[in-house]
Amino acid sequence: MTTGKQLFTTLEADGTLTVAIEEVTAPEPKGNQVLVKMEAAPINPSDLAILTGAADMDNADYGPGKFVANMPEPFNSGSRARHGQKLPAGNEGAGTVVATGDSDMAKALDGQRVACVPGNAYSQYCIADAAMCLPLGDHSAEAGAGSFVNPLTALGFVETARMEGHDAIIHAAAASNLGQMLGRICRADGMGLVNIVRRDEQVELLRGQGAEHVVNSAADDFMGQLTSAIDATGAFLGFDPIGGGRTTDICLQAMERVAASRMTEYSRYGSNHPKKMYIYGRLSPGETVLTPSYGFAWTVSGWLLTPFMEHAGLEVVGRMRQRVVDELTTTFASHYKEKVSLEGMLTRDAMLDYSRMATGEKYLVVP
Amino acid sequence: MTTGKQLFTTLEADGTLTVAIEEVTAPEPKGNQVLVKMEAAPINPSDLAILTGAADMDNADYGPGKFVANMPEPFNSGSRARHGQKLPAGNEGAGTVVATGDSDMAKALDGQRVACVPGNAYSQYCIADAAMCLPLGDHSAEAGAGSFVNPLTALGFVETARMEGHDAIIHAAAASNLGQMLGRICRADGMGLVNIVRRDEQVELLRGQGAEHVVNSAADDFMGQLTSAIDATGAFLGFDPIGGGRTTDICLQAMERVAASRMTEYSRYGSNHPKKMYIYGRLSPGETVLTPSYGFAWTVSGWLLTPFMEHAGLEVVGRMRQRVVDELTTTFASHYKEKVSLEGMLTRDAMLDYSRMATGEKYLVVP
Repeated sequence: MTTGKQLFTTLEADGTLTVAIEEVTAPEPKGNQVLVKMEAAPINPSDLAILTGAADMDNADYGPGKFVANMPEPFNSGSRARHGQKLPAGNEGAGTVVATGDSDMAKALDGQRVACVPGNAYSQYCIADAAMCLPLGDHSAEAGAGSFVNPLTALGFVETARMEGHDAIIHAAAASNLGQMLGRICRADGMGLVNIVRRDEQVELLRGQGAEHVVNSAADDFMGQLTSAIDATGAFLGFDPIGGGRTTDICLQAMERVAASRMTEYSRYGSNHPKKMYIYGRLSPGETVLTPSYGFAWTVSGWLLTPFMEHAGLEVVGRMRQRVVDELTTTFASHYKEKVSLEGMLTRDAMLDYSRMATGEKYLVVP
Repeated sequence: MTTGKQLFTTLEADGTLTVAIEEVTAPEPKGNQVLVKMEAAPINPSDLAILTGAADMDNADYGPGKFVANMPEPFNSGSRARHGQKLPAGNEGAGTVVATGDSDMAKALDGQRVACVPGNAYSQYCIADAAMCLPLGDHSAEAGAGSFVNPLTALGFVETARMEGHDAIIHAAAASNLGQMLGRICRADGMGLVNIVRRDEQVELLRGQGAEHVVNSAADDFMGQLTSAIDATGAFLGFDPIGGGRTTDICLQAMERVAASRMTEYSRYGSNHPKKMYIYGRLSPGETVLTPSYGFAWTVSGWLLTPFMEHAGLEVVGRMRQRVVDELTTTFASHYKEKVSLEGMLTRDAMLDYSRMATGEKYLVVP
């Protein structure tokens, strides 16, 4: 029996959020499963949703190996479906296969370093599906830890755009780890890209990487810059990881300005040019606000990796996975600000830092 | 040369909205055009968008044959595309063909009473496309005046639902003229329907017409009623004519409650069950607010009749038009509170009344 530490997060009905480390026994891998000794797991925004979410971080208790905070309303009620459940955390990570089930696919991975998506990656040992593992060859666990969420999401945006007939997209919060990957993919694939960032340094960062269209949402002429970039690229599809607030609305407004400028006569219904924004994250947990200023030819929709992959099918997903392996240290390279142990994840300094989800300040957990 | 009165609406850049009657010369009908002496034209919410919109009705000038009001911000800026343009008004109406172009289709309509969609129906004479006219036979102009907008929109909802694989829909503001038509269509066609209304009398009205699921948004247990009705019908697609505010959000929340209640384990991403709302009107000109409480499997989109018909194709639209003619005085019967002349349209009493868009208080213009 293999035992090891694992992190769990529990939200009670009264709004008490507890994140704590426990000693657990790893299950025996069966069939197509492998047991992975985890070496590295990134903290992505999607992980933070259940680790900290909208909890009151300033007034929390940060004990050794245990974090307790209050989840304010309306977020506590909004999470009623998880009340009382002790949930694992950590979508993805990398480590070494130390035991396998009896399928040939599982046995072939024995002893190899792999990237995996176990859903409980903040653990010393994880059970993973061999079919989902990416063998990392000579790559380090750190290089492979983030092989799924950001790379496949960025590739998924470009696939989505192509499936829907677009050759240019808008991306908000574009200086993120994912945004930089997306920029490299778009440049390689000839997909037009309008990057929205919120600071001058981020404009410089992306320009330095070769980005052509970078607009700063803090600039006085942001709307003018955004409209010009949409006009130049023809980007009428966008991806917004912020969710709350007005980012999606502003993109639709700017798209409509471009579409309206191309109309020969006025219509009370706005332009007929389809305008679409996907919300794929919740960097801001607030409400999404949409103004009635872009007619009726618009769509706002959620975007999530797993349903997208199911929709795209095995061939497309296989091609995406192969590209991640081939370009792991180039297109899909990630940089981490800090490495922390499971206990280190729960210190006040670390939690206050990574829960801000600041651009370029990603944490790596080394269980 | 035929001359007659016509109503025009003009919004200046400074926010001055002027609606006035002018004497104009009707063009000669050419080719497939017909000249219709208009006898009746309804005032639909979509007409009000450019007639009054969000103008300050209380402090307006109501002169004989002329209305002048201020359009407040942000609505004035939002309408910048029409600034300075004198626009006709009145989507649809009915009257008698008094002259035709030289095409066979146009000539065949000579002397007939027809319903038409000229876009300037608040006129004594209109040019209309013969291909779009519906011959009314023995029906009155009043019976045929509203043959397009509401009937085809209601039929379009059911067609949209079928195309997207749904067998039940939600409709907000369901006691409207359009909502009552939709109820009759859904009952005839076996499409499940959840009606949302806002007063007890409207619950009674729709129940009296045979509606099975009617929920009152003013009731204390509205959310519970709505959730139960979605659970009973499986309605994960809805149509919202209100647009501003929280109607669309509440429908998505209720859909998610039903979907979540059917899940066997918690997901931080919400249910995977697709949830979709179409906004097809702007009874409320405010902002649409969406809460982050239904995961990522959701879509909100604008819906508009003309692009829908282009998308649906000639065969579907032909079937829809035939059904309108066949069921004009049953399924598609409209009731009008008042009949007014062109001058009568612009009186203070009439404008304050119809601009409220109150349920069951539709006006008919008799030019």
